[in-house]
Amino acid sequence: MPEPVTRTVCLLGFGNVGRRLCELVARNDDELAERHGLRLRFVAVGTAAHGSLLAPAGISAADVLELATDPAGGRRAFPEPVRLGVELLLASGADVLIEATPLDPHGGRLAIAHLEAALGHGADAITVNKGPIAWDYRRLSTLAAAHGRRLLFEGAVMDGCPVFNLFRSCLPDCRLLGFEAVFNSTTNFILDAMGEGVSFADALAQVQAAGYAEADPSHDIDGHDAAAKVAALANVLMDAGMTPDDVPKDSIRAVTPERIAAARRAGRRLRVVCTARRDGGGVSGAVRLTELVAEHPLFSAGGSTLSVLLQTDLMGTVQIAEIGALPEQTAYAVYSDLLALHESR
Amino acid sequence: MPEPVTRTVCLLGFGNVGRRLCELVARNDDELAERHGLRLRFVAVGTAAHGSLLAPAGISAADVLELATDPAGGRRAFPEPVRLGVELLLASGADVLIEATPLDPHGGRLAIAHLEAALGHGADAITVNKGPIAWDYRRLSTLAAAHGRRLLFEGAVMDGCPVFNLFRSCLPDCRLLGFEAVFNSTTNFILDAMGEGVSFADALAQVQAAGYAEADPSHDIDGHDAAAKVAALANVLMDAGMTPDDVPKDSIRAVTPERIAAARRAGRRLRVVCTARRDGGGVSGAVRLTELVAEHPLFSAGGSTLSVLLQTDLMGTVQIAEIGALPEQTAYAVYSDLLALHESR
Repeated sequence: MPEPVTRTVCLLGFGNVGRRLCELVARNDDELAERHGLRLRFVAVGTAAHGSLLAPAGISAADVLELATDPAGGRRAFPEPVRLGVELLLASGADVLIEATPLDPHGGRLAIAHLEAALGHGADAITVNKGPIAWDYRRLSTLAAAHGRRLLFEGAVMDGCPVFNLFRSCLPDCRLLGFEAVFNSTTNFILDAMGEGVSFADALAQVQAAGYAEADPSHDIDGHDAAAKVAALANVLMDAGMTPDDVPKDSIRAVTPERIAAARRAGRRLRVVCTARRDGGGVSGAVRLTELVAEHPLFSAGGSTLSVLLQTDLMGTVQIAEIGALPEQTAYAVYSDLLALHESR
Repeated sequence: MPEPVTRTVCLLGFGNVGRRLCELVARNDDELAERHGLRLRFVAVGTAAHGSLLAPAGISAADVLELATDPAGGRRAFPEPVRLGVELLLASGADVLIEATPLDPHGGRLAIAHLEAALGHGADAITVNKGPIAWDYRRLSTLAAAHGRRLLFEGAVMDGCPVFNLFRSCLPDCRLLGFEAVFNSTTNFILDAMGEGVSFADALAQVQAAGYAEADPSHDIDGHDAAAKVAALANVLMDAGMTPDDVPKDSIRAVTPERIAAARRAGRRLRVVCTARRDGGGVSGAVRLTELVAEHPLFSAGGSTLSVLLQTDLMGTVQIAEIGALPEQTAYAVYSDLLALHESR
């Protein structure tokens, strides 16, 4: 067994995904070295409110976790003051940027700046933010290619469920003709709770309390999150060159309990269904409230079970779904991107 | 662009899959050369009743199709007499064997002999037969490794739907804890037709007329086909070392129309559900008649829509399904295996 290759990581964002990624890497450190010949060392960690870490010699994921945890098991700030992500990244000289900052409502501009800095300065980049892929994929992928770097983003849509990798690695030479999907957990929860007789306001409060919805829930409720996922998937797999603004969207605000109850009585489910299809020379997408019959392959999408039907020319329609997604699974997406990066070098 | 690499193929079996593979390769010949640097040339084609072809210089897929088609567009026998598959393979000196002979009821012994001959004589091997993978995977994969060859079989379970590739390429370091699946079209059709009031005998006749069931339908009806798929998946993805004989199976012969009607009234569907799980040190599988509620992710499996839930440690449960499979899709599985082989060399 040859000596493992060390790759240095700058992790921006240390919320749910960042922390769980460190846990996963710490648990699998030996396996990464022995099976894959890869040793990951963290040279920087940036947060918006809990300090930062700059360790040019590189520390292990387990050491990152120790630094971030106080003796009582609570959260501890990193030793250095908060710094701008780009500044931290460049100071760290990392081989790989992992962009896991919280969602920003401005089309992912902060995440885009981080990715640009990485790709323009010799680092590969992994993001779990859908914003950059939804709003700016064509430019960022061109930038990556121009610098001989890679931009990976399996966690940007459907958490760790490998929708991009399935299409790109397992369906070679297939052309994506279109897709149909349920991509948003929050609206699944609200629509189902309303079906149980809960009011819209109470259903929303429940899903916020459970940690699924954003503090500003309009992102989910009015279809912006779903539209961003439509654009991301269409940009990557159909070369659509679209933004979420190009995707017409239904809001669930106007849905009445009576409508949901009527659908239930007919054995149907109301869902926020995302679609895209080739349309003349381009690609058109939509986010529409749709009643699904029980036999429909997306009927079982509910709660955090998300699902997509990929319509291809050579392999007909292939469905992939994650059943009851957990936050760990977005961290797993980053882990699989790190391995893909390592294996392509 | 460097000159494409030529790889020579011996195709055993020229039924639906073999012919459609040649159509697919003929249509994509330029793309294979330009995008993948691969030129496929057929050096032998073997059939059981329609002659054989031996062309050591290699001919294109389009030429194979022309030889196999009479001027009226019907089937024409290949120019040479029928020969034993192994003999033809060895005489051809092919780089790759494509094993696409019809299902044989004796545990795929013929297909196994073909694969052994290929792997033992310096050829890679691709099969669409589940028999070898269900009955003899461990020995065949050991043989392949010992000779530095590869054995690929994406078409053996769920036609071209990339269930093996999904797990092996897109879920790195995941351990498969178990699976739950609907793997058999014939029983889907029969159970649904009975739900519409058709008798078992008539439903069976319909599905045979549609070309889905074998002439001897007990293979499907009594769960042997499903058990073979359980063993194949468990052998490859869980290192189970099992055979279909190790899998207890329910037959659908005893199912009454009343039972199906009662399930339908309750909003449920009766399905032949395949499962496997880790069990102590080993793996146990089963094929069981099961009533599925509408919310179950396998509920939408029906007709030739087949679906599997892969239960993993790191990525929770991931579902993959093919919606309304067509014979072209098994040919596509071989096509994707050919590309995988080429890209690994």
